[in-house]
Amino acid sequence: MLSALDLARRIEAGELTPRAVIDMCAESIAAREQDVRAFVVLDLDAARRAAEDARFISLPLRGLPVAFKDIFDTFDLPTQYGSPIYAGNRPRADAPAVALTRRAGGIVIGKTVTTEFASLVPSVTRNPHNLDHTPGGSSSGSCAAVAAGMVPVAFGTQTAGSVIRPAAFCGIAAFKPSYRLIPLVGVKDVSWHLDTGGVFGAGVADVAFVAAAVTGRDLRVDRATPSAPRIALVRTQLWNEASAVMQGAIETAARSAATAGAKVSEVKLPPLLEQAYAAQYVIQDYESVHALAFEYDRHRDLIDPRLRDALDRGAEISADDYDAARRAASRGRQVLADTMSDYDVILTPSAPGAAPYGLATTGNAMFNRLWTLMGAPCINVPGLSDAGLPLGIQIVGRFGRDRSALEAALFVERAIAR
Amino acid sequence: MLSALDLARRIEAGELTPRAVIDMCAESIAAREQDVRAFVVLDLDAARRAAEDARFISLPLRGLPVAFKDIFDTFDLPTQYGSPIYAGNRPRADAPAVALTRRAGGIVIGKTVTTEFASLVPSVTRNPHNLDHTPGGSSSGSCAAVAAGMVPVAFGTQTAGSVIRPAAFCGIAAFKPSYRLIPLVGVKDVSWHLDTGGVFGAGVADVAFVAAAVTGRDLRVDRATPSAPRIALVRTQLWNEASAVMQGAIETAARSAATAGAKVSEVKLPPLLEQAYAAQYVIQDYESVHALAFEYDRHRDLIDPRLRDALDRGAEISADDYDAARRAASRGRQVLADTMSDYDVILTPSAPGAAPYGLATTGNAMFNRLWTLMGAPCINVPGLSDAGLPLGIQIVGRFGRDRSALEAALFVERAIAR
Repeated sequence: MLSALDLARRIEAGELTPRAVIDMCAESIAAREQDVRAFVVLDLDAARRAAEDARFISLPLRGLPVAFKDIFDTFDLPTQYGSPIYAGNRPRADAPAVALTRRAGGIVIGKTVTTEFASLVPSVTRNPHNLDHTPGGSSSGSCAAVAAGMVPVAFGTQTAGSVIRPAAFCGIAAFKPSYRLIPLVGVKDVSWHLDTGGVFGAGVADVAFVAAAVTGRDLRVDRATPSAPRIALVRTQLWNEASAVMQGAIETAARSAATAGAKVSEVKLPPLLEQAYAAQYVIQDYESVHALAFEYDRHRDLIDPRLRDALDRGAEISADDYDAARRAASRGRQVLADTMSDYDVILTPSAPGAAPYGLATTGNAMFNRLWTLMGAPCINVPGLSDAGLPLGIQIVGRFGRDRSALEAALFVERAIAR
Repeated sequence: MLSALDLARRIEAGELTPRAVIDMCAESIAAREQDVRAFVVLDLDAARRAAEDARFISLPLRGLPVAFKDIFDTFDLPTQYGSPIYAGNRPRADAPAVALTRRAGGIVIGKTVTTEFASLVPSVTRNPHNLDHTPGGSSSGSCAAVAAGMVPVAFGTQTAGSVIRPAAFCGIAAFKPSYRLIPLVGVKDVSWHLDTGGVFGAGVADVAFVAAAVTGRDLRVDRATPSAPRIALVRTQLWNEASAVMQGAIETAARSAATAGAKVSEVKLPPLLEQAYAAQYVIQDYESVHALAFEYDRHRDLIDPRLRDALDRGAEISADDYDAARRAASRGRQVLADTMSDYDVILTPSAPGAAPYGLATTGNAMFNRLWTLMGAPCINVPGLSDAGLPLGIQIVGRFGRDRSALEAALFVERAIAR
């Protein structure tokens, strides 16, 4: 894998040029893309031309190649949302997340495969660790592109678990910041109270570095040793849905963190948060059928039947049920803030286990839904595995305390690696 | 003016056809549009063809003509955001608010003039009551089109005061619902924590009727006599900025409501809400410069200097100041909920006074900023005037209690009319 931070350091030190980094990516792409199928569109020639711009060297991202999930608008590359309805769609502008990435010195080398409208419907991307397994979704291509070493940085979005889950399945770091820390203007919205932008990278320090550069926030964690966090080990009511190996991985991570000096306490979530979990489904389904109203009314036949069924279900949800779900979410956020008042972060699985076999599903987001609904910063910490397939450990921080969550995730990442 | 509710009733009764309503609009447009300049683009032929579809008669909006501010994407009409950067821009899809309007039986007859990116920069639209005065902004065209009787229904958006203020200046009803009750997917976002969709119509019952049809919510207030509300008369710290005539109008409205049976109490806002007011500026300016990052970086010379200056100021705001503003807003919402626990609604000015003379500004949003930030439902109640120019009375409801706010607004509207 390509570490964004390492590449940036080598560019800064004059050991590498941005052009050489593009060439490294091009080489990996030539070797892996045919199997992994992470990209919808690539423009390496444009990237090489852009890399000649010496101005990049003084910018935070220093000419690093970046890929975007194909639901982020780009003015120079098609944006098709994984849907035949948008074949050949050419937006007039970059989404702000794209524009801010370019402003920070990132070079957009391509758009990555998304499931149809970032939904549950799988696409063609495969897991770089084992091509017979799903890479997860819906940010399938962004995650697989980083995991296969084809690009150091990629952006995705999460409505239920579409950033953290694929990162867990592909064995890379991912950061889903607090709700709307990364602007989602110009991104195809499917659920406006849930959709959250996120970053994929090789390790925790890499995603923090990129998020800092793009948001202009003090999020870097690579310049000091992270202090030992107070960790709440939260099994949630879904614990029995996690594989035995995943349960063991969480316990291993907790032990490693404790050995490294973290204060780890077992914490049970209040019942109200279990209710809030159910609210995530209601909000996502209700908002999706509204967000996709045009497509649903005018291009029904071009929507995959699995997504159409989900939208039909959403159309049955009443405004009252939706409002009740919003209230449950709102109360849940307060209860979570209280629950976390004595802890820096929660440690919990990123997914029920390793990437499922086959490409028929993108895996289950059950271990992500609640945290997305809470708007809390989440990080997938890579480093553990099950029979050759990666296992993901999730660190959940307090809303708005993204830097503290990233520090704790780095601490756990290092503890696991020891 | 054309009442949406009245037209819908006459269509339902068989006294009018949707085609005849389009013709009525076409006649008004022929008479007034040359002076008022509310539309960017009109397609009356397409509207007439659409009106022949008998299916409309069974739908809630029954084939009523609707206009949209030109920041809502439409698949069949250009969408140019009031900016030369987007000249000729043709979106692939309708924004959900547009699609849901069509689903409810509305016929989109045109796109209305917006200030540049819904900002402070005035455009060409004039106040139908006096062409030498501003119609207000940023939803200038939508508001003027309804006020001039050119269309019964139009949609706009409000970031600071862009729905309620123009409605006040043009003497029509407007409803800015609770934050994100109307989906803003597919609308050019300038401040994602503030932008809110809203509806313009002849009277309070009209905007409630349209909002109900488009959102599928129980918001109609025309089928029963509204019960007498508990009204908090809130002068705010800005009271001295309101004209003497506006101050008198608010007192008149309060007296009329009390005479009609409402319980009216004078309420002073807690100081924390005054701080929250200041936070609105910070959030709007910080988010705008991010939301328009592409335009700012690549088309700076095509942005009006007044907007460019505002964006430059936004670029100076630190993430810490923005976060502090977000926290102030969040605390403010709790304090406002507490403050309003004994009242159904707040009565307060919609604007400092009548529409200012000239087209050099769109007037001041000071009496709107706090309520937009709070996400609270707001209604402009028309009916009072100052030397021939309309004066707007604002009813502010509790978050999520939109129907109750609309009922109270209808009560006040009727009380004023007596």
